[in-house]
Amino acid sequence: MKSAISTAFNSSKLLHRYPFSFSRLSFCHRASAVVHLPEFLQQSDKIHRGSRLNLRRIHTSFTPVMAASSFKPEQARAPPALPLPTPPVTKAPNSSIFFCTPTGVLFIFLSLDFRSYFVQFNIGLCQLAVTADKQQNIQHARKAIEEAAAKGAKLVVLPEIWNSPYSNASFPVYAEDIDAGGQASPSTAMLSDVARRLNITIVGGSIPERSGDRLYNACCVFDAQGKLLAKHRKIHLFDIDIPGKITFIESETLTAGDTPTIVDTEVGRIGIGICYDIRFQELAMIYAARGAHLICYPGAFNMTTGPLHWELLQRGRAADNQLYVATCSPARDEGAGYVAWGHSTLVGPFGEVLATTEHEEAIIIAEIDYSLIEQRRTFLPLTKQRRGDLYQLVDVERLNSKS
Amino acid sequence: MKSAISTAFNSSKLLHRYPFSFSRLSFCHRASAVVHLPEFLQQSDKIHRGSRLNLRRIHTSFTPVMAASSFKPEQARAPPALPLPTPPVTKAPNSSIFFCTPTGVLFIFLSLDFRSYFVQFNIGLCQLAVTADKQQNIQHARKAIEEAAAKGAKLVVLPEIWNSPYSNASFPVYAEDIDAGGQASPSTAMLSDVARRLNITIVGGSIPERSGDRLYNACCVFDAQGKLLAKHRKIHLFDIDIPGKITFIESETLTAGDTPTIVDTEVGRIGIGICYDIRFQELAMIYAARGAHLICYPGAFNMTTGPLHWELLQRGRAADNQLYVATCSPARDEGAGYVAWGHSTLVGPFGEVLATTEHEEAIIIAEIDYSLIEQRRTFLPLTKQRRGDLYQLVDVERLNSKS
Repeated sequence: MKSAISTAFNSSKLLHRYPFSFSRLSFCHRASAVVHLPEFLQQSDKIHRGSRLNLRRIHTSFTPVMAASSFKPEQARAPPALPLPTPPVTKAPNSSIFFCTPTGVLFIFLSLDFRSYFVQFNIGLCQLAVTADKQQNIQHARKAIEEAAAKGAKLVVLPEIWNSPYSNASFPVYAEDIDAGGQASPSTAMLSDVARRLNITIVGGSIPERSGDRLYNACCVFDAQGKLLAKHRKIHLFDIDIPGKITFIESETLTAGDTPTIVDTEVGRIGIGICYDIRFQELAMIYAARGAHLICYPGAFNMTTGPLHWELLQRGRAADNQLYVATCSPARDEGAGYVAWGHSTLVGPFGEVLATTEHEEAIIIAEIDYSLIEQRRTFLPLTKQRRGDLYQLVDVERLNSKS
Repeated sequence: MKSAISTAFNSSKLLHRYPFSFSRLSFCHRASAVVHLPEFLQQSDKIHRGSRLNLRRIHTSFTPVMAASSFKPEQARAPPALPLPTPPVTKAPNSSIFFCTPTGVLFIFLSLDFRSYFVQFNIGLCQLAVTADKQQNIQHARKAIEEAAAKGAKLVVLPEIWNSPYSNASFPVYAEDIDAGGQASPSTAMLSDVARRLNITIVGGSIPERSGDRLYNACCVFDAQGKLLAKHRKIHLFDIDIPGKITFIESETLTAGDTPTIVDTEVGRIGIGICYDIRFQELAMIYAARGAHLICYPGAFNMTTGPLHWELLQRGRAADNQLYVATCSPARDEGAGYVAWGHSTLVGPFGEVLATTEHEEAIIIAEIDYSLIEQRRTFLPLTKQRRGDLYQLVDVERLNSKS
């Protein structure tokens, strides 16, 4: 097990948007196993405090807020927030040891390329054009995923409802039985296959799911072995009515999911929300308290809510919770019944837009560096400054799992 | 008591920023009394359900989400969220009744200018230059308030720490005993006097307060009779450390307040936060659940956090909670020890920037229309779509006041 290391250098990426530099704190451990949701929820103490991960937290000399125990910051979340887990994606350092005796005294030099310690990987956001031909959509998505992986993406995210037009009339027609799998769900079968073949993690956007006599808007997450790690059913259905602009009642056909979804993957702990889920700040707060590094929101905002709120909500969730947020929209089709806004985006833990695009088809490749989460939380120690004596957010599922 | 009225027309103001129109729902009742915090907290049922205000809610034909009772949206806040109170600022309609008998049959025409029903008033945000001369600061603030009132402001907001330089060295020197009043607090004495003389409500930014052997960062709210309605002591102290950029430890001199502050005024129910308080989304959520129309944040973000987060946080709090947010900063003084960002702003309940400024001294006059809150909440009925079965925000003070 490697020990924690810290160093500092300028973040050239951020300099493009913000004219100042940051020092970086980094840390490095390798997770020995992927942890699934039930174990994660029920054995969180073991995961975070056990010897397997041997978590070592970064300590800072900046301590005044730590003394404010009367404010009970740990009570601002119930159950108390979990510590940020060690990101599992690490690289071995480029190191060399050599001896030198110029004056007769033995010197030992240890050379480490610290940059190789940083917990970095590339994410790929596939902003796909969606047609009425499901088979074509599946083939098209496969090619996009392959292209993203070829460009270095270790995590690929797809849009909301990528195998079907977005309409209440289409959902029953295009829906698949994900639990049955195989021929009953060609869309997820493709995702599983391509994840395994390319050795990447996939947050598979969403497709209409049929389960018994119910339909859901469901997002499947596959690991690099092609295993289905988690399935998120959209919790907050898109029922809105802005007269003359956009009216959509998803609940006319769909049933809402009944649980948040967060999963440990080979590219970090990821919370899942689908589109309208992003409007509910409580869900992001729950994921942050469960130790998420990243929240992925496949989403298809429209031409009214897109320019109003799409970027605002992403940046807000990232800045308030000090974690990464990735969104992935379908490309815009002006002739479709529902016209998507596009603008898939990656946001960093200071609420900074790291990569985005316009409304055409696009594959965004962008770097994620989880060490920045700890850094931002050291700069602005919000989690230690909350007033648990005044407010408390209850995560009902976690609370019940402990009782 | 007038009845609820609804109508529709284009909102020309929003068309500047968002190229589409909204229909407006309006409502009109006059509150007969200002309700202070303790009564508001302890007798909320009486306030909202009693005959005095005889609140009539706008009902919509858009009902699918209402059927989702298994999601327990009312449990997403504990205690359950209060209904939005009737805004007290109303105008009598321009109406006329006349008879006409062109064909021998009696017709009665009722003419109403519906626009006069809207709950509108002007807010004034005084982005003041602050010097090391307290007496000069007080005189300067008085003139600015008079100018804002002369331009039609019925509510005037001042910046954070407007009577003193912003530094831990200055706070003890400039602090005033607000509770003693009179000569012990010339800053608040001026605010009380000018509010009464001009018949306006003042959210008096903040000043350093001395209370016994403690110092606070305190915001006083005065009604149009000059009465001190509420005093908010900054709950979340500004303790941050971004190396090489901004380090400030407010807790070296100040003590944090121990309660949220929300108050019924002649210009609506207003929640108060001071600067760093805005980073904690829970406080805004609590205020929204207590029925706030508007949250005022006097604040002095700096040259690092200002460009990063000042507008983002304001827009996020407004959009997530579907209410108005007003911020007021000191003007920028490049030679000061702490350089403020400026950019005082009014944000509407869709997260839209309605009025803002740069960093120089400025008095922003902008219109607030509380009927838009109901309209936005009808368009996007977030409060009825929350998942109280999955998450719950507890307002500790309200919960305790009921037990």
